[in-house]
Amino acid sequence: MKYQTPRGTLDFLPDKCAERVYIEERFRYTFTRWGYAEIRTPTFEYFDALKLGTGDELINSMFTFEDKGGRLLALRPENTNPVCRVVATKMQHYSKPIKLFYIGSQFRYEEPQSGRQREFFQAGVELLGINTPETDAEVIAILIEALQNIGLKDVRINLGHVGVFKSLVQEAGMNLSEAAELRKNIDKGNIEALEDELNKLSIQNSLKEAFRLLPELKGGIEVTDQLLELIDSPDVDAAIENLRAIAKVLDGYPYAGQITINLGIVRGIDYYTSSVFEAFVPEMGESALGGGGRYDNLIAEFGGQDVPATGYAVGIDRCHLALEKQNYEFPKPEIRILVLYLTQEERNIAIQTTINLRRVGFPVLLTFEEKGIVAGLKLADKQNVPFVIIIGEKEVKKSEATVRDMTKGSQESVSFKNLIEYFFSKMVK
Amino acid sequence: MKYQTPRGTLDFLPDKCAERVYIEERFRYTFTRWGYAEIRTPTFEYFDALKLGTGDELINSMFTFEDKGGRLLALRPENTNPVCRVVATKMQHYSKPIKLFYIGSQFRYEEPQSGRQREFFQAGVELLGINTPETDAEVIAILIEALQNIGLKDVRINLGHVGVFKSLVQEAGMNLSEAAELRKNIDKGNIEALEDELNKLSIQNSLKEAFRLLPELKGGIEVTDQLLELIDSPDVDAAIENLRAIAKVLDGYPYAGQITINLGIVRGIDYYTSSVFEAFVPEMGESALGGGGRYDNLIAEFGGQDVPATGYAVGIDRCHLALEKQNYEFPKPEIRILVLYLTQEERNIAIQTTINLRRVGFPVLLTFEEKGIVAGLKLADKQNVPFVIIIGEKEVKKSEATVRDMTKGSQESVSFKNLIEYFFSKMVK
Repeated sequence: MKYQTPRGTLDFLPDKCAERVYIEERFRYTFTRWGYAEIRTPTFEYFDALKLGTGDELINSMFTFEDKGGRLLALRPENTNPVCRVVATKMQHYSKPIKLFYIGSQFRYEEPQSGRQREFFQAGVELLGINTPETDAEVIAILIEALQNIGLKDVRINLGHVGVFKSLVQEAGMNLSEAAELRKNIDKGNIEALEDELNKLSIQNSLKEAFRLLPELKGGIEVTDQLLELIDSPDVDAAIENLRAIAKVLDGYPYAGQITINLGIVRGIDYYTSSVFEAFVPEMGESALGGGGRYDNLIAEFGGQDVPATGYAVGIDRCHLALEKQNYEFPKPEIRILVLYLTQEERNIAIQTTINLRRVGFPVLLTFEEKGIVAGLKLADKQNVPFVIIIGEKEVKKSEATVRDMTKGSQESVSFKNLIEYFFSKMVK
Repeated sequence: MKYQTPRGTLDFLPDKCAERVYIEERFRYTFTRWGYAEIRTPTFEYFDALKLGTGDELINSMFTFEDKGGRLLALRPENTNPVCRVVATKMQHYSKPIKLFYIGSQFRYEEPQSGRQREFFQAGVELLGINTPETDAEVIAILIEALQNIGLKDVRINLGHVGVFKSLVQEAGMNLSEAAELRKNIDKGNIEALEDELNKLSIQNSLKEAFRLLPELKGGIEVTDQLLELIDSPDVDAAIENLRAIAKVLDGYPYAGQITINLGIVRGIDYYTSSVFEAFVPEMGESALGGGGRYDNLIAEFGGQDVPATGYAVGIDRCHLALEKQNYEFPKPEIRILVLYLTQEERNIAIQTTINLRRVGFPVLLTFEEKGIVAGLKLADKQNVPFVIIIGEKEVKKSEATVRDMTKGSQESVSFKNLIEYFFSKMVK
């Protein structure tokens, strides 16, 4: 127990690691099908850059350390900020829209939970350079499709609009820090605490009612009607108009039925400006697999021009957990072959046989088993290898390998030059 | 310039990132062909665990920071130590040999150079549980094949044996720290400094001569003859015997001609016990792409039983640089299609067309271009998209999309239901 990994970090042993690599490759496949290009940013950056636009909660969760010059560095707590830094400082000349994705580790010093580690893995997309309802709809659609393509069933999206909340805050004559408690209680659906908080405020009753309503406005796009009736504000009108336009575009996607409007989502990260959304599967309850939204002001913070943007991140650890809970059958590992030679005299022909089989794509283990054929087959059994090619003196003399099918317990002779063909026919079955 | 990345870290923009992902996938392919399984360890761990067996140079290069309980953490400076920790603490029950590989970031606070960053990427394999010349030979062979499979030409290996050096040190009545300067000068081939150092020592002349010879013993396995004649030591004899046995197994691999014996390799990391080797290509000069060796005592340091092991790590950044210097032609990006719809009336059919094409594997961009067809084609041109599917009022009415070949400047009508077939035939050509 002396050498455990730090709290909130994980080792991925072979079986879990293979599943993880599979999930990541499926995300990569979906994102590239949608024409998105991969990008990779450093694991640590200057704290001053990473904190831009992210809000206190994220800033306080960063792992920080100093370089030898005393400058504060941090492990990235999320990847949207670094992508924006790259776009602002190195991709100004790229044709818009810019469509990017990333897959990698993020780090937050938080209390670990199931599916939520201190080192955690995210896959995310960012669509930059255009602000239209079509682009908001696209990232929501690719979120659903990406989750489905890794094998998840019953994916659901809650779609809200922080523009509504932010406009209400403005109408109430408050700023966002003053509204932090309101926001938290709305986001958590904590109605009682929300009412207490509202009772303390001296603002119009219609505004109080609107705030109180937000966590309850869930369903079809028509739930927005109530707000329009209650509040007379061009900003609130515009936000709802925008949400309706996004919902209308989404109607053209085959995933429209999986989306619920939910104005109670007023997510924690400060940089969101309009649409916000979260993805769920029933097996994970209230724990979102990921989420995102539009953030039109973040890139300009890095000193570049204004670039509207929308995107999301999903937690790969949570997706992995959700797949396990849904009893997803990951693809079986590739079938491996063991080449077993019995004396040093057959070594070179065993090596050559192994190399030939690997060249055409078979995963092949090579072993010299001094203790003889029984010990060799025992090894094959322990290592779950279904086929063993045995090469001894007799085999070399006849130019025929003995191939043992470990599952059937049978064996047959196959000439060395026919081995590739033989295994191709085995693998097809 | 306000938001640069820290010194020694890199952003990978889309083109470079695609090359990088390709290289990593090729490494993964080779390693799995040889029956190795992937493993992933945390980016940071307890300093006390990471420092085991690694030597002062590596320990001093670690990025360290404290958790909130005051325990010292560090970013991993290499991945062999963490793999050994996992094997010692979590894989004792696995059938031996255990064959593992990893691909990931490592971190060292060193002066950045071309192909050598502070955050750098390594691919490596570890073969654990058996100490035979066959296993030493296997990891050297997989190193050569892995480098060739990513596209490198003229890969060369220098193969030495630290057992020889360590036995000579023992014969001289010294310990390894006392021999640190000798070791450095031998490894760097700094003959003059080596002679000065040897002159200071009061040891047998034959030992002095042996140390002085080491950096010059390069060539075929017969270079070891000189040492055997010079030194009468069972330990030196055993080390040379072991090196000869490894070389003999390697003779059975088609890569034997790429290997040079070099007893001047006495690598810096302390945990190596016997064979040591480094990989080179001519375009990178003296800068090794990677290296490794046998380390039979490391795993027991984690409190597990003794497990012999051998393995290596290659620097992916250096491999990438070497491929560029060799003018390697990375695979061309997949051909993308742009679906362009002209008014909101055609939106839903455009979405459906896009989704259908993506489902069969085509990378497809979808765009609504309010400014009309000319602006849309200009966008396709800027984004290097060779085919545009245009969907306007006319196309919907006739149930035929207009497909424009941007390279030829030609266009033709293709019925919506034949689009998939049409593009399959285009892509085959």
